[in-house]
Amino acid sequence: MSGRLVILGLGPGDVALRTPQTDAALSEATDLVGYGAYLDRVAPRAGQRRHASDNGAEIARARQALRLASEGRHVAVVSGGDPGVFGMASAVFEAIKHGEPAWRALEVQVLPGVSAVFAVAARLGAPLGHDFCVVSLSDNRKPWDVVCARLRAAAQAGFVIALYNVASVARPWQLGAALDLLGGILPAATPVVFAHAVSRPDERIELFDIATAARGQADMRTLVLVGSRETRLIVRPSGPAWIYAPRGAA
Amino acid sequence: MSGRLVILGLGPGDVALRTPQTDAALSEATDLVGYGAYLDRVAPRAGQRRHASDNGAEIARARQALRLASEGRHVAVVSGGDPGVFGMASAVFEAIKHGEPAWRALEVQVLPGVSAVFAVAARLGAPLGHDFCVVSLSDNRKPWDVVCARLRAAAQAGFVIALYNVASVARPWQLGAALDLLGGILPAATPVVFAHAVSRPDERIELFDIATAARGQADMRTLVLVGSRETRLIVRPSGPAWIYAPRGAA
Repeated sequence: MSGRLVILGLGPGDVALRTPQTDAALSEATDLVGYGAYLDRVAPRAGQRRHASDNGAEIARARQALRLASEGRHVAVVSGGDPGVFGMASAVFEAIKHGEPAWRALEVQVLPGVSAVFAVAARLGAPLGHDFCVVSLSDNRKPWDVVCARLRAAAQAGFVIALYNVASVARPWQLGAALDLLGGILPAATPVVFAHAVSRPDERIELFDIATAARGQADMRTLVLVGSRETRLIVRPSGPAWIYAPRGAA
Repeated sequence: MSGRLVILGLGPGDVALRTPQTDAALSEATDLVGYGAYLDRVAPRAGQRRHASDNGAEIARARQALRLASEGRHVAVVSGGDPGVFGMASAVFEAIKHGEPAWRALEVQVLPGVSAVFAVAARLGAPLGHDFCVVSLSDNRKPWDVVCARLRAAAQAGFVIALYNVASVARPWQLGAALDLLGGILPAATPVVFAHAVSRPDERIELFDIATAARGQADMRTLVLVGSRETRLIVRPSGPAWIYAPRGAA
């Protein structure tokens, strides 16, 4: 078997944030497998096959990629951001774990990328300057109680909290419930940022505090960052305030 | 004032993991400011000034960079990894907050990079496939009790835990204490990875479980990843096992 499988992420959007390693893998692949909206972000190359699928079909997509690699193809599975952060990497390894034994002999490589959370943080200043956590608000695959327990633990312990998968048509109420829960623990003035499509042409960033954050508009492309008690703002003579967490925040 | 300040990270080491945006900023800067070991990783450029400083002098280094930018220089502050994750970004904003009012009018930009935690995760498989947190074990700027409270909260709530600043000559016992604490909460078989200098020539990765992790050797360039109850291994016919966290882990 000479096929191989590379799992990569396109970064937050701007191609200047995509690593040379990822670019090389994209151009060497014989087959690209991914959610259609991600594949659309990759320039076409003659002779390269594309296998686009709908959002949400991660395991089926992972199995398709593994079958292609088993047939000797050089497959790139295309995620957004970093493929290991709520991207395709976990789905591929789940598919291997529960799939054909021969898949364990395949050459599989994961390429790190710039995750949305770091692109958002960079835009704001240094909001991840101390201990932080990353939580998916999706309750498609874990009970909502688990999400709540994690948010409560993180806020009480003083972590900055980055929220992924905050809202979709099928999950309209979870973000409001999460902000309510966090608002019951954190001071009312705790900064909350809604960051939409960072580094893309329709980028939009809104700053709230936890008491007013329910006003924010969110969809599938929004990341929400909730500060800690130590998060600070720096007001500037022009432009939005910078946000940072001191390194020693306790 | 036409100076500007860019805060960037070199990624984990391999230049193929450095973004084009960061490369461009490095070549446009008139002055590079950073820890000497990081500046040594940047190819020299004629006419570009270098201001190397010792590790640990972050605020002094940040103030130096801000002064240079105030004088009209185009300054790049050079961190490793992503500059917002225990890198120089937070120190620069702390220095602005408590420094010259004029510094708030400077053009300051943070460029995201590939953090060590994502490079390590990619090497292992998909260990950050569900909710995770990032904790610095340094008690230089926060009480050790706070570190312990955060580790306890994270382990009890089911986060995968990435540990930064795990050991130095001045902080020899903290990692052992942290692993003891986590070992009292997590099942004995929970995977723990010691990842040293990932993507660099002296990369070394060791897999333990939480019961035996005290055997691992760590220094300033080691990142330690502690799995959750849901973390799984995939044994392969050849090569090290893959490690992943299922997306839905509860």
